[in-house]
Amino acid sequence: MNEQTTTGRLTVVGLGPGSPRQLTPEAHAAIEASSDLFGYGPYLDRIALLPGQTAHRSDNREEIARASAALELAASGRQVAVVSGGDAGVFAMAAAVCEAIEAGPEAWRELEISIVPGVTAMLAVAASVGAPLGHDFCALSLSDNLKPWETIEQRLRAAASAGFVIAIYNPVSRARPWQLDRAFTILREELPETVPVVFGRAAGRADEKMTLTDLASAEGALADMATCVIIGSPETRTVARNGLPPLVYSPRSAGRPT
Amino acid sequence: MNEQTTTGRLTVVGLGPGSPRQLTPEAHAAIEASSDLFGYGPYLDRIALLPGQTAHRSDNREEIARASAALELAASGRQVAVVSGGDAGVFAMAAAVCEAIEAGPEAWRELEISIVPGVTAMLAVAASVGAPLGHDFCALSLSDNLKPWETIEQRLRAAASAGFVIAIYNPVSRARPWQLDRAFTILREELPETVPVVFGRAAGRADEKMTLTDLASAEGALADMATCVIIGSPETRTVARNGLPPLVYSPRSAGRPT
Repeated sequence: MNEQTTTGRLTVVGLGPGSPRQLTPEAHAAIEASSDLFGYGPYLDRIALLPGQTAHRSDNREEIARASAALELAASGRQVAVVSGGDAGVFAMAAAVCEAIEAGPEAWRELEISIVPGVTAMLAVAASVGAPLGHDFCALSLSDNLKPWETIEQRLRAAASAGFVIAIYNPVSRARPWQLDRAFTILREELPETVPVVFGRAAGRADEKMTLTDLASAEGALADMATCVIIGSPETRTVARNGLPPLVYSPRSAGRPT
Repeated sequence: MNEQTTTGRLTVVGLGPGSPRQLTPEAHAAIEASSDLFGYGPYLDRIALLPGQTAHRSDNREEIARASAALELAASGRQVAVVSGGDAGVFAMAAAVCEAIEAGPEAWRELEISIVPGVTAMLAVAASVGAPLGHDFCALSLSDNLKPWETIEQRLRAAASAGFVIAIYNPVSRARPWQLDRAFTILREELPETVPVVFGRAAGRADEKMTLTDLASAEGALADMATCVIIGSPETRTVARNGLPPLVYSPRSAGRPT
């Protein structure tokens, strides 16, 4: 801890994809300045605690309970950090903290809240294979825990038919085994089967694994919970290289809608 | 320069939104390890050159010429970095480099190319106001220099009606003065006029300016070339606070499509 103040505060910190080389100095400083750190266990495991810091671990399905516990401690005067993998604002804890503040006691609306952005997974995956997000794209969570599957299907069709590249977060889990295959089936109805598909696992980390295929061959078994899937638009291209992996990119220019 | 090798290479580096506190250690190291840096002048101005490093400045409309010059120098054996603001893969130089490799001489396909991701503008803007990108969202360039305006209108309507939050890059320029107002007109046909709109300028920098309004009051005059505009979905909420700016966030849950 670098400082002690009498007023509590809460900072939501994006840790980036996993490598310390992709953690910003701002995020590092925010972690060092906190007395208490909240987060999903594997994210907290990335942090070497300083003397006097306390880690509060929780499961990955308990976002609102975690946010509320963190806000309560901040309101009591502590310097609290809530950590997320990637960027704190993309399918992560910043929205859960805002939601808890809106539903919580009046005192939480007087707390100093800051959010420290980070490199979100799709950016790290894209960088590893070229520039598939080089033109218009969308980011979509495939989890139907908190939204109807019907909404997800509608969004997949709308994004694909309008020409957006699609980055899929939360593609599968033990409780959601079929959704990604169903998504590919839907996308095959909207897109050419030749569009490139990237399965990016643990981007930027030592165990990084990038799998490049096309929509015809894409299948759910290629993804796990740590995978971000990027599905190209009809404009996305693959450049073969000599002795090197191909580059996948979406050109800066686009044609007329069909 | 930390090392000399006999083989040239090219690294495309995302510098983040502007503050050195949001530049990753990986990006910093990539810049230090390069002999030659290419980029749009204002991005190169952020970098303190080391002895022996050469800066190659170009205008912001010359991406392919810049990428080709950088590749040519890398092919001659130099350690080249091409810098972009934000993330190198989002409406930035990584796609231009891939495009130049595809169109260029065979030797460029044998070059070692790496891309270093960064915090892209929309993430920094979102973090400054809450978590407007907390659920499904898209990123769209409003520049019609390289795609027909008709395509942009179609994408705006598709994204808005499907419930995506929309982050607009390149909202205006001297040569494109009317497009953003036209985009708001289109969006008012697809969305409630109460959805929050954030104009985020220079996020994370000393001269950061965030303007929060709603779709009814949004107008092009609130943006300049350094602005990223975020338009909420019908689910995006604004939380008033006591003596603090409101929080804007998109909840993790979503309803059925209408």
